[in-house]
Order: sequence, then structure tokens, then C-alpha cells
Amino acid sequence: MSRIITIGREFGSGGREVGKRLADELGIAYYDNEIITEIAKRTQLAEGYVQHVMENSPSTLIPITIGRTFYMGVDPVFEQNNVIYREQSRLVQELAEKSDCVIVGRSADYILRDKNPLRLFIYAEMQHKMERCRKRAPEHEHFTDKEMKRHIQDVDKRRGKYYQFFTGQTWGDKLNYDLCINTSNTPIPEVVKVIAKLVK
Amino acid sequence: MSRIITIGREFGSGGREVGKRLADELGIAYYDNEIITEIAKRTQLAEGYVQHVMENSPSTLIPITIGRTFYMGVDPVFEQNNVIYREQSRLVQELAEKSDCVIVGRSADYILRDKNPLRLFIYAEMQHKMERCRKRAPEHEHFTDKEMKRHIQDVDKRRGKYYQFFTGQTWGDKLNYDLCINTSNTPIPEVVKVIAKLVK
Repeated sequence: MSRIITIGREFGSGGREVGKRLADELGIAYYDNEIITEIAKRTQLAEGYVQHVMENSPSTLIPITIGRTFYMGVDPVFEQNNVIYREQSRLVQELAEKSDCVIVGRSADYILRDKNPLRLFIYAEMQHKMERCRKRAPEHEHFTDKEMKRHIQDVDKRRGKYYQFFTGQTWGDKLNYDLCINTSNTPIPEVVKVIAKLVK
Repeated sequence: MSRIITIGREFGSGGREVGKRLADELGIAYYDNEIITEIAKRTQLAEGYVQHVMENSPSTLIPITIGRTFYMGVDPVFEQNNVIYREQSRLVQELAEKSDCVIVGRSADYILRDKNPLRLFIYAEMQHKMERCRKRAPEHEHFTDKEMKRHIQDVDKRRGKYYQFFTGQTWGDKLNYDLCINTSNTPIPEVVKVIAKLVK
């Protein structure tokens, strides 16, 4: 079984925790936000900007004039975003070449499809995700339940659009993954031990 | 972790094999077609008829006159089907009371929801399901690829309708399960060993 593991995850479901614990258990590399930092370095763009591009649907990043006018030239913002996407794809490939690893997000399941990674998708019931987010919220965050739910849905909607734009596949569709894990009733440490056995 | 395990499965994905192997590995009971046999015995209906009712969307079993006329009385066919559904529900509950077990199909994940079973859903890519079905086909079966694909889709469509009618939930929606397993790339014996560890 492949020891390159990609993790798609719903916001608040504990996907990062699964990834970190799994990498620890297997003694292999773990990549998440490190990827954004590295892309920022390579493209010489601000880290915050790279993050913004990678967390938003590409269509919302294209200046409105492209849609309105007959588009002849190259739009600098659109081009800059493409540079980021190409760099992400190249970097994810490089990381997977270098050593066994766990990669969270970044459409890595699709980018690495020729390497047959073990593709996990982590999800949970909304109530469970809301409770998890509350426990981990920074002190200044005071969302009502309704706001929290909308926030979770918004993040996932953006992730879904981003994934679909680059892969042509539906984010969260179980056919794109080898194993989909609902963390609502299954404690993450137990799940991780079991997945590690599948890979070892 | 619960040692009552329910398995929903796409036709041709190897759900029964997962169930049987898992029950063997754990040394617990396994129920699949045995349930149909027992219901037939209890209702004194022919086994073939019980199977037909349980494999078809209930709406296709209701005589067309109910839809057409103002319905006052009790329709005997509709009532007979209800008897079968009630018996199924009672029997699944009884089996789960009796001992640890693996139950394949029969909307058992929903019927046993108060017992918090470990709810598995087994699925696979269409190509994989078609190949699996070919290998296991009886000698007299000579489906073309197109016919085979339609057959697989038809069986699952009926399962989905049946499940939805009784549970109000969408069949195959990952939120109804704890673990969804794609058997296209993951060998079943390996998966089973790992799930057994989660339960032991």
C-alpha cells in the first residue's frame, strides 16, 4: 500500500489532526501550510496573498473586466494566479518524489494520481464540526451557532470550487477517495492507528 | 467500538465478501440472505416473493388503483408488503440483541441506529464492479458491457429507493456511515484486517 497519503477534509472535521497523527505514527513527512510558505518563497509573492488565492474559487479572482469586454491580452492577476497553481502542482510532485509523506489539501489526490496515493477524505456531521470549531476558536471569535454553521459551509464551498476548477472532479465525492472517514463517532487516535496498519 | 457492524454496499463492490471475511476474522455472526429465509418462514410467504419485495422500490409494489382512486380500504398487497418490512425490522433488532454480528443490507444501519453500530459502506468504480461481476457471473449469463453496466445501475437504483423509502435518508450518502471504503484499489482481505482491529 502506498505510503504517500493525501487527505481531503471538511472544515472542522479534524482532517489536519488525522494527517499529523498519521505522519507521526508512520514516521513520515507531513505537509500542510508549509506548502503555502514555500510557494510564497518561490513566487516571491506575499504568503497572505498566496493563501488567499488558494482558498478562493479561481473565478472570483478573475477581474470582472475579463467577463465584460472582449478579452485579447493577458491579464496580470489571472496570470499571477496561474503561476501559483502551477507552482503548487510542481511542489506537491516534488515533495512526493522526495519521501513518503502525508499531504493535507492542495488537490494532492489529483496532482499525484499517477503515483496511486492512499486518498483519504475526512468528514463529520455539522453538529460535530461546530463543536470542534468552538473548542479550537481563538478567544476573540464569537460566532453564533448560525454564523458558525455558515462559516463552515462557506469554507467548504470555496474548497469545493477550487478543487473542481483544477481537477474537473467533485470535491467530497467518495469515488475520488479510497477511504472516507466520518469522525463524528469514531475517535481520531483510534482511526489513525488503524489506517497506519493499512499502510505499514 | 461497537461489534455490531452494518454494511451498505454497491452491487459488485464486494460488500458481501467484506462482511463475510469480517465476521470470520472477528468470530461473530454473519447475516445476509438468512434474513430473507427467516422472514419467509415467519410470514409464511414464499422466499422468492419476500426477496422480490425487499429488492424493489415500495412504490412499484403498490397497485396502481391506489394512485388512481380515492383510497378508503386496506389494500391486501400493500398490507402484505408492510408485514414484510415490519418483520425485517423486528428480525434485524432481534439478531443484534442476540449477539455481536455483521448484517449486510436490509437498512440495518438505520434500524439499529439506537445501538450505534459501526456503519460501513462499500463501493467501487464502475469498471471495477463490472470486472468483479463478470468473474462471478453464472455460466448462462452473457451480458454485453452496456447491459452489465445497466444491470449494476438498476440494482443500486432499486436499493437506493428501498432505503430511502424506509429511512428517509439518501442511500450511499457518506454522512449515514462511519467509514466508506472504495474497493477499486484496496484489496479486501487487507481492508478487513484493518477494520477488525478498529472493532476488536
